[in-house]
Amino acid sequence: MARYTSMDFIRFLLFDVHHVESLFAYEKFSHLDSEQAWMIIESAKQFADQEMHPFFKIFDDNPATYDGNGGVKTHPQLKKIIRGAAAQSWIGGAAKFEHGGMQLPEMIFNTGHHIFQAANNSVQGYLGLSTGAADLITSFGNQKQIETYVPPIYEGRWQGTMALTEPQAGSSLSDIITTAKTTEKGYYLVKGQKIFISGGQHDAAENFVHLTLARIEGAPAGVKGISLFIIPKFRPTEDGSFYYNDVHCAGDFQKMGQRGYSTTHLSFGDNDDCQAYLVGEPHKGLTYMFQMMNGARISVGQCAASVAMAAYQASLQYCLERPQGRSASEKDPTKAPTLIINHADVQRMLFTQKSIAEGSLSLALECSKLYDQVNGTTGEEKENYLLLLEILTPIVKTYASEQGSRSASLAIQTLGGYGFTTDFPVQQHYRDLKIMSLYEGTTGIQSLDLLGRKVNLQNGKAVKLLMNSINNDLKVSIEFENLTPYANILADELKRMGNVLEHLSSYAMKGDVERYLSDATIFMEMAGYIIIAWQWLKMATIAAQKIRESNFKSNSLSFYQGKIHTMEFFFKYELPHSEACAKTLEDVNTLTNIKVYEMFQ
Amino acid sequence: MARYTSMDFIRFLLFDVHHVESLFAYEKFSHLDSEQAWMIIESAKQFADQEMHPFFKIFDDNPATYDGNGGVKTHPQLKKIIRGAAAQSWIGGAAKFEHGGMQLPEMIFNTGHHIFQAANNSVQGYLGLSTGAADLITSFGNQKQIETYVPPIYEGRWQGTMALTEPQAGSSLSDIITTAKTTEKGYYLVKGQKIFISGGQHDAAENFVHLTLARIEGAPAGVKGISLFIIPKFRPTEDGSFYYNDVHCAGDFQKMGQRGYSTTHLSFGDNDDCQAYLVGEPHKGLTYMFQMMNGARISVGQCAASVAMAAYQASLQYCLERPQGRSASEKDPTKAPTLIINHADVQRMLFTQKSIAEGSLSLALECSKLYDQVNGTTGEEKENYLLLLEILTPIVKTYASEQGSRSASLAIQTLGGYGFTTDFPVQQHYRDLKIMSLYEGTTGIQSLDLLGRKVNLQNGKAVKLLMNSINNDLKVSIEFENLTPYANILADELKRMGNVLEHLSSYAMKGDVERYLSDATIFMEMAGYIIIAWQWLKMATIAAQKIRESNFKSNSLSFYQGKIHTMEFFFKYELPHSEACAKTLEDVNTLTNIKVYEMFQ
Repeated sequence: MARYTSMDFIRFLLFDVHHVESLFAYEKFSHLDSEQAWMIIESAKQFADQEMHPFFKIFDDNPATYDGNGGVKTHPQLKKIIRGAAAQSWIGGAAKFEHGGMQLPEMIFNTGHHIFQAANNSVQGYLGLSTGAADLITSFGNQKQIETYVPPIYEGRWQGTMALTEPQAGSSLSDIITTAKTTEKGYYLVKGQKIFISGGQHDAAENFVHLTLARIEGAPAGVKGISLFIIPKFRPTEDGSFYYNDVHCAGDFQKMGQRGYSTTHLSFGDNDDCQAYLVGEPHKGLTYMFQMMNGARISVGQCAASVAMAAYQASLQYCLERPQGRSASEKDPTKAPTLIINHADVQRMLFTQKSIAEGSLSLALECSKLYDQVNGTTGEEKENYLLLLEILTPIVKTYASEQGSRSASLAIQTLGGYGFTTDFPVQQHYRDLKIMSLYEGTTGIQSLDLLGRKVNLQNGKAVKLLMNSINNDLKVSIEFENLTPYANILADELKRMGNVLEHLSSYAMKGDVERYLSDATIFMEMAGYIIIAWQWLKMATIAAQKIRESNFKSNSLSFYQGKIHTMEFFFKYELPHSEACAKTLEDVNTLTNIKVYEMFQ
Repeated sequence: MARYTSMDFIRFLLFDVHHVESLFAYEKFSHLDSEQAWMIIESAKQFADQEMHPFFKIFDDNPATYDGNGGVKTHPQLKKIIRGAAAQSWIGGAAKFEHGGMQLPEMIFNTGHHIFQAANNSVQGYLGLSTGAADLITSFGNQKQIETYVPPIYEGRWQGTMALTEPQAGSSLSDIITTAKTTEKGYYLVKGQKIFISGGQHDAAENFVHLTLARIEGAPAGVKGISLFIIPKFRPTEDGSFYYNDVHCAGDFQKMGQRGYSTTHLSFGDNDDCQAYLVGEPHKGLTYMFQMMNGARISVGQCAASVAMAAYQASLQYCLERPQGRSASEKDPTKAPTLIINHADVQRMLFTQKSIAEGSLSLALECSKLYDQVNGTTGEEKENYLLLLEILTPIVKTYASEQGSRSASLAIQTLGGYGFTTDFPVQQHYRDLKIMSLYEGTTGIQSLDLLGRKVNLQNGKAVKLLMNSINNDLKVSIEFENLTPYANILADELKRMGNVLEHLSSYAMKGDVERYLSDATIFMEMAGYIIIAWQWLKMATIAAQKIRESNFKSNSLSFYQGKIHTMEFFFKYELPHSEACAKTLEDVNTLTNIKVYEMFQ
């Protein structure tokens, strides 16, 4: 069995770095202990090993395809995976007992899903979407909606989806034109087109629950006139039977990656008989949807980290087995070739991958923990956790997806020509990963969210909380002599980020919002380097503690030394690019407001 | 017809920036003038428009596949393309009249091939390999070999290939074990396996001329015991008939990109009847092969630039047509959406692509010109051109392929979710491009070549010549007030590179070659930023001259302003990363010589 993630690393993150056990103090999670938590993670690994990972390439070779008749054909194993995962609570596991869940912390639930994502990322999406859809109904739907739709989703019989994007609007949700007509019977009649609907009407589910954004006739323009609806493919009727609800799948997009995942074009109400059931209040749809969206953004970031991790593991395995070439100082061609892992440039490629994949996964779990902390606390504490979560969400989504692609590219590179062939998985990881910078808001959208909204939340309180959180960690790190220089570098980077924000704010103060936001993506890139450096220093500090205490219960000395080493590597090879970003951001030249299009020719 | 390159830009490069007409002073090219040269380029465009570009996606959808019986099945159009290109001299055009060529400068010949690469990169390779193989035979083969093999290659009936790589050796050519047994009849009998043989035994050619590296029995170990052979698939006999030469195609690798291009596994001499004809002297094969290899490296760099260019053109076209969203300061959702090209972040993505694609193409043509200058001169002048060509070759290969992938990723990004679907070409560009950092020596190999060999050629003479060449250009740039700051920045960057080299040399002086070379790839990255900055400043300087002289004969004012603007963009957004690389390179920590493999876990 090829390795696609590291259970040692997962345990290190969960228990040593992010202290999942601290969550068990919350009443909601008091039924759990660490041993149980780990057993749950191990069950996910076993399931992924048996049912998901063996189908990674098979799903790529047999993509989801339109059946020509309103449905999508998938590989038969998909149904087995969805039902099996559901049976083990991997759809509803984080829900409350009263809703049929296991009341797991998101942190544990998402760690299980990390394993699925690393094993077979185009399958994990089906599960994740169902979870998100059921959560949304549970949070904002009425009792009847919850009772009708949530249980079959948790059983893996019905598939949940998010239906936001429209052909003419793309990322611009304010331009959604799908309309919902009021009827006297309480439901609405919806008409419109949605594209890129992941997990859309395939043959592995009995029914579909499309959480759909539409505009009630007469609603205000823009995002303030968008409502959220439940639209099933087959609507349940009073007598327990089902009736086709005029939701037609008009096609399945073929893609360069995640080929096992259906990506549908849905047409609602072609025959004016598409019933839709309002969730919550009218015109508040986008606010509701953003609960699902924020979860999905963290999930996409985590998925990118997971795919990068799988590519890293495949790359590492190859480098440990492949003899080729000799050291630069060895001139004798009759000597046996060395393993390629002994070449400095190969080690550089491996540590780059490791630093990106593991650093991103650590940040993703940090976000999951914050999510649990938000839900486990009240008042100012809750509010602070939420602010931290909100500012980190676009960063984990973007860093992991952008740098994850670079990481998977290096995985191909370590395999040489073999990496480009379909005989090895790394090229599939590279293809799959590219979607992550597009899903749930592109990198450009995430960057506008970070600099335009999150940085300014409550007069910059989110930034201050983040700085405090990092500074608290620095105080621990600085105690270790071998970490002191790195703690000082990170402190300098935080100052640099502060200076950049001050510089950028001068544009905003003058009312020049365009200029303030024009290089948001470069600011995002800079923030990514700094935040991941923080995660690495945090991991290195824990490792240094373990080494000092000679406490190698679950991992070996080399494991912990590897963490400190990778931190040093990140600070030497990756972090310096933060300064380059700062230089760009502080450059007063404005170069991206060209009106004469001929200048692009 | 979708645009895949810019004829305006090509003309600008050829005539304004790199002065192709200066080559017509050489006797070899005295039969040409600028008007003829441009007609030749236009004929390439017409051919590519009609025969190549319409099949870009079709070849991807119908990949070259093993026919199960020693051959590779390709799309029928391939044969038409190869014969048609041959008829227009796009295989032998750069050869001398006496060998059936048109005696074109490489610069013109390669510019034509840029158009082919941008139009349909997996097809251009078939042509390029044939050209390279015929060149090699012409340079080092005997009269009979030239007469036998070159004409049918130039007619497009026979396909030339390079057969270097073996399964066990990969990039390490010193470990080649394919053997050549001497016979009394003058030929050799070869036995061995070669993999990744591009353009291998497909159904669009009548015969194959495999230029093969093998070791004559009893030859010294390592690269000093490698000889070069011509091995046809069907060997010509005295009576004019052909006889199967025991070269079996054992399979065709399936790949993530360049799917129209056959990538074969060849087995020589399974039945001990594979005749091979020595080219030149025994044991000098690698030296000969490196003529073809160096040409191929520039060609791969140019191909990467060309594919990045095609992706950029597709991206630009989409951004000019797609309305979506509103400016950051426009809050009114009832206003019509704007074209996405008006968003700052989209402009950033477009200018990044433009700076990479056009900058790389300019460098590739600089290399082609140097090649012509080497061949047109003698003595010290020739030697200096050759040194410049040698030091720039790994840089153009690596910069274009590594940054080209990033550029194509941004092309996908500008299209949003559509970019990930097979309905649009940019995802194919992204997939195709990834091979360029692997072909003809990976990025790691190129970087060792640059820092380990080229930088030290004749005690650093190549570096000095390059610095002089750049400094001469800077003297012109600095005369333009708006360019002075950029000329100064580039001068500083050259100093920075000098300092880095001095720092690294201190390791080499102490005999620590491993450490000297350990970050060669980072040095390569740094060199790439600086060399492309030079190309941009050169282009901007020409543009500034045109603007000062109000000389807009062939292009518009906006075109020239666009060049200056893109230069400024490159200096603001890309070049600062050179300093980050320098910081890494000057960091004295050595982090890539780990012996305890568990630290990677």
